[in-house]
Amino acid sequence: MSSAALDLTTDAVTLTRQLVDIESVSRDEQAIADAVEAALAPLPHLTTTRRGNTVVARTDLGHDQRVVLAGHLDTVPVNRNLPSRLDEATGLLHGLGTCDMKGGDAVILRLAATVPEPTRDVTFILYESEEIETEFNGLYRLSQSDPDLMAADFAILMEPSDAVVEAGCQGTLRVEVRTTGERAHSARSWRGVNAIHAAADVLARLAGYEARRPVIDGLTYHEGLNAVGIRGGVAGNVLPDECVVEVNHRFAPDRSEAEAEAFVREFFAGYDVVLTDSAPGALPGLDRPAAAEFVDAVGGGRGAVNPKFGWTDVARFSALGVPAVNFGPGDPMLAHKQEEHVPVEHIERCERVLRTWLGGGTV
Amino acid sequence: MSSAALDLTTDAVTLTRQLVDIESVSRDEQAIADAVEAALAPLPHLTTTRRGNTVVARTDLGHDQRVVLAGHLDTVPVNRNLPSRLDEATGLLHGLGTCDMKGGDAVILRLAATVPEPTRDVTFILYESEEIETEFNGLYRLSQSDPDLMAADFAILMEPSDAVVEAGCQGTLRVEVRTTGERAHSARSWRGVNAIHAAADVLARLAGYEARRPVIDGLTYHEGLNAVGIRGGVAGNVLPDECVVEVNHRFAPDRSEAEAEAFVREFFAGYDVVLTDSAPGALPGLDRPAAAEFVDAVGGGRGAVNPKFGWTDVARFSALGVPAVNFGPGDPMLAHKQEEHVPVEHIERCERVLRTWLGGGTV
Repeated sequence: MSSAALDLTTDAVTLTRQLVDIESVSRDEQAIADAVEAALAPLPHLTTTRRGNTVVARTDLGHDQRVVLAGHLDTVPVNRNLPSRLDEATGLLHGLGTCDMKGGDAVILRLAATVPEPTRDVTFILYESEEIETEFNGLYRLSQSDPDLMAADFAILMEPSDAVVEAGCQGTLRVEVRTTGERAHSARSWRGVNAIHAAADVLARLAGYEARRPVIDGLTYHEGLNAVGIRGGVAGNVLPDECVVEVNHRFAPDRSEAEAEAFVREFFAGYDVVLTDSAPGALPGLDRPAAAEFVDAVGGGRGAVNPKFGWTDVARFSALGVPAVNFGPGDPMLAHKQEEHVPVEHIERCERVLRTWLGGGTV
Repeated sequence: MSSAALDLTTDAVTLTRQLVDIESVSRDEQAIADAVEAALAPLPHLTTTRRGNTVVARTDLGHDQRVVLAGHLDTVPVNRNLPSRLDEATGLLHGLGTCDMKGGDAVILRLAATVPEPTRDVTFILYESEEIETEFNGLYRLSQSDPDLMAADFAILMEPSDAVVEAGCQGTLRVEVRTTGERAHSARSWRGVNAIHAAADVLARLAGYEARRPVIDGLTYHEGLNAVGIRGGVAGNVLPDECVVEVNHRFAPDRSEAEAEAFVREFFAGYDVVLTDSAPGALPGLDRPAAAEFVDAVGGGRGAVNPKFGWTDVARFSALGVPAVNFGPGDPMLAHKQEEHVPVEHIERCERVLRTWLGGGTV
């Protein structure tokens, strides 16, 4: 067995360590994708397909339901946090990617290998370059090249979510709100109009914003409208003739991108507003049978399901008509932190819940 | 006569053209300083001193009054506006430096050469690098190396002022006003505090500022308080934890730098205010005999004197206890413009006024 080989017969925690110890910063995922493909391809109950450094493995048992389990293989850059380190006393596994999201990947690989006859057909997707621009994102690329491989009744993205179900996701859009004025030498400022002063009202509107908190499928979302940047100024002795406020709006999935944009334009009525970026939200879709049965398997009912505030790749499934949730080990607040880690208990719990749901019995 | 020689026996307009046609962008003033020194040094009634590319020439007739006439020799960069071009129809001389300020320099050189026995002793100063950082400024350097050469009862800087006396100058200071907050992911913005939103009140105070307009020596000044820059922002999905507003305050010369700073700190009470730059104003000093007699010579009394709003080198004389005014040909609003020009009539009028004041008769 080479150093980059994976042993799918071992437990999920050990497998997480094997995955973590294969460095896989975005755009440098060939070694880990090779190892994943080499581990899955020999399994006779799966059909394995590779696209770039994305690996897809499917059962084809003729069930009337198909579900997806998906995880990305890449990490943010190394930050003195490799190799992995297991702290037996606290039950925490430390290291880059333990939380985001090789713990989830290990669960996916364990289930792929050890549940050869699931009660619903499963598509396992391990994909590349989630942490960087969309154009490199393996799930985005797959949605363009092979949308059939993503077709399903329900999808679970094993992103860190504290081993709790996070359903739907909020949309996001960005606008530039621009004020204009007239340049003048600051020694004779009454001859000009100061565009930065004119932005006072833009910021006052933002400071007075009251967030909408709609309830959708029993989940309470929480919108946001925030300046994420501001710039203006020509020189230290010149009245500026332009000030630009960059605003990010996060909107609940009961609104379309167009509705959210209309809200922002109305909010900044009277100002020059330019849309620079937009991505739709995703409805929770918990009324679908596969989703409802999954929530039952997790336990706690819908009260144990949290809304997803951030934008995630679940929206890519939603755009294909596939309801999707996040459910994975690790605290999402630790993602991208130097000190990221995952509780061993989370990994075990996620595997147990999914194994039961897929009819794989107990380990 | 080499191409860079100056003929001080010709009229001031022709001399202006000779000066304009010697390119002298800041830090490239050797040729023009050589020409000025070569023209002044042979004159027996003057003692000529050179420091770098600054030339000083003095009479020493034992009068109880000494006055300074000063002008800088450098220009802003060339912008397809050389050589000079005289439009006879409009009476305008076009070209880089015609307005700022070789018309004034020509008047200084003409008076130096043709009024050998002025009624008050005169120090003529032609200096380098006014258009760039203070450390290169010839007048600043002279104030450090040879303050005695700047000693006088009164000084006239021949910067463009529409051939009208501009007295005193306003001071200037800059502060950074900083708001702070707490970073958070913009998808969960209620967990943070947006520092840009917190700047709304800073900008509202600026927008509501009412300028003080004090009357000093009969002149009405006009202060200003303006944002000249604003910056904030970490990333498109992060609540910013800092926003910085750069503010420029222009203050009338009845206030010291310390008083002006105290005003700004009080104005932004409750905020973090850091002083980044400060220069004092200069009182008009029109009560000094030499100044009063000059105003009489110009004609129109104090009603014909304007306050100087911008900061100029008159403050360098003021700091040495020498009252100073601006009085020179050309519209100051044309300075640094590609299309700068000077009315021939301004040059002639300035020369006539100064010649009369110095007891040089008429040309």
